[in-house]
Amino acid sequence: MAGSIPKSVRDLIEEFGKLPGIGPKTASRLTFYLLTKPEEDVERLAKSVDGLKKNLIICSECYNIAESDPCSICGDQAREKEKVCVVEEPLDVVAIEKTGFDGRYHVLGGVISPINGIGPENLRMAELFNRIKGKGVKEVILATDPSLEGEATAMYISNYVAKFKSQSASWRTNLKNLKVTRIARGLPVGGDLEYADEMTLTRALEGRKEY
Amino acid sequence: MAGSIPKSVRDLIEEFGKLPGIGPKTASRLTFYLLTKPEEDVERLAKSVDGLKKNLIICSECYNIAESDPCSICGDQAREKEKVCVVEEPLDVVAIEKTGFDGRYHVLGGVISPINGIGPENLRMAELFNRIKGKGVKEVILATDPSLEGEATAMYISNYVAKFKSQSASWRTNLKNLKVTRIARGLPVGGDLEYADEMTLTRALEGRKEY
Repeated sequence: MAGSIPKSVRDLIEEFGKLPGIGPKTASRLTFYLLTKPEEDVERLAKSVDGLKKNLIICSECYNIAESDPCSICGDQAREKEKVCVVEEPLDVVAIEKTGFDGRYHVLGGVISPINGIGPENLRMAELFNRIKGKGVKEVILATDPSLEGEATAMYISNYVAKFKSQSASWRTNLKNLKVTRIARGLPVGGDLEYADEMTLTRALEGRKEY
Repeated sequence: MAGSIPKSVRDLIEEFGKLPGIGPKTASRLTFYLLTKPEEDVERLAKSVDGLKKNLIICSECYNIAESDPCSICGDQAREKEKVCVVEEPLDVVAIEKTGFDGRYHVLGGVISPINGIGPENLRMAELFNRIKGKGVKEVILATDPSLEGEATAMYISNYVAKFKSQSASWRTNLKNLKVTRIARGLPVGGDLEYADEMTLTRALEGRKEY
């Protein structure tokens, strides 16, 4: 069977099939779709894929992917330096940027996950603590995913900060005022209460505010 | 917001977003997934996309995409020449090949669709009729989609064949024996009768066979 499909077509189906959420059927569909497109469209896609990582670096302040160091966010003097939003991945920065958040970020590069052998030492954790210990940061916003591992990672950071706050000298007033916050867990906007899971509903009740 | 995302990342999100069934969120997810992969994996994908159409030609017999002319199917002497399976797209050939079908194909390159301005003259219709009129073909299997347009296209071919059979000279015995068949419409295997739509159920009843 496979012999009847040209090799270049089989190759691309295989490569597309390696992407997350793309099964063999979708991979075929995408490939055959590209076959119907003009050569220049296909070349533009190839070039974009090829150029993706060229000229990309990691910002030495927030560890987000960037074109310059510091990145455009860390280099923007109009953004508040006091607020550092801690996220798992660069994609999370994109999501939070859409809300109009005006602080800085810190990209951990993942979450603590003993099952996958990922501990704090495999993440940008020491770098985060160094940033926090330095002057200027007043609030650490923990925006890891509301998943088991995301919660554990948030807890780890919160515990660590509490510990070094209690141990640090009394003259370090900046640490005394340091706040650690966690993004709210609750019902998603537009969601339906009757279909919400138990955990989400528990969190939504716990996080209730005066109306 | 967009300014905080490197240009190469934005470019690829845009290109992925042009693919069918891939919205902006999936396009972002795929792009950021590639960012986590080693350079050589990304390059392999880029190369596969770039190489897709290189060395590809259209088989002058069945009009399927191929690496040689005739293609590996048309050139295979072990396959029956008497049966020609008419399909819309190259992807349909891949699907039918999986069933172990041992005849030949004819790829129309689409369906008759007045709304999209596609008439028989925009498809490989004349080429199909020439193949049928030539000697050797005993059965034309119409395997266009069971959609409105697929059915109309099947009907068009069937009518045309009936017409030139009735008009052709009595000595052309090969045409007299020419059969035109249509793939069965009915309940999909593993499907659930109670969820089947009216049209499918009507077709399933019409196509019933003695048990």
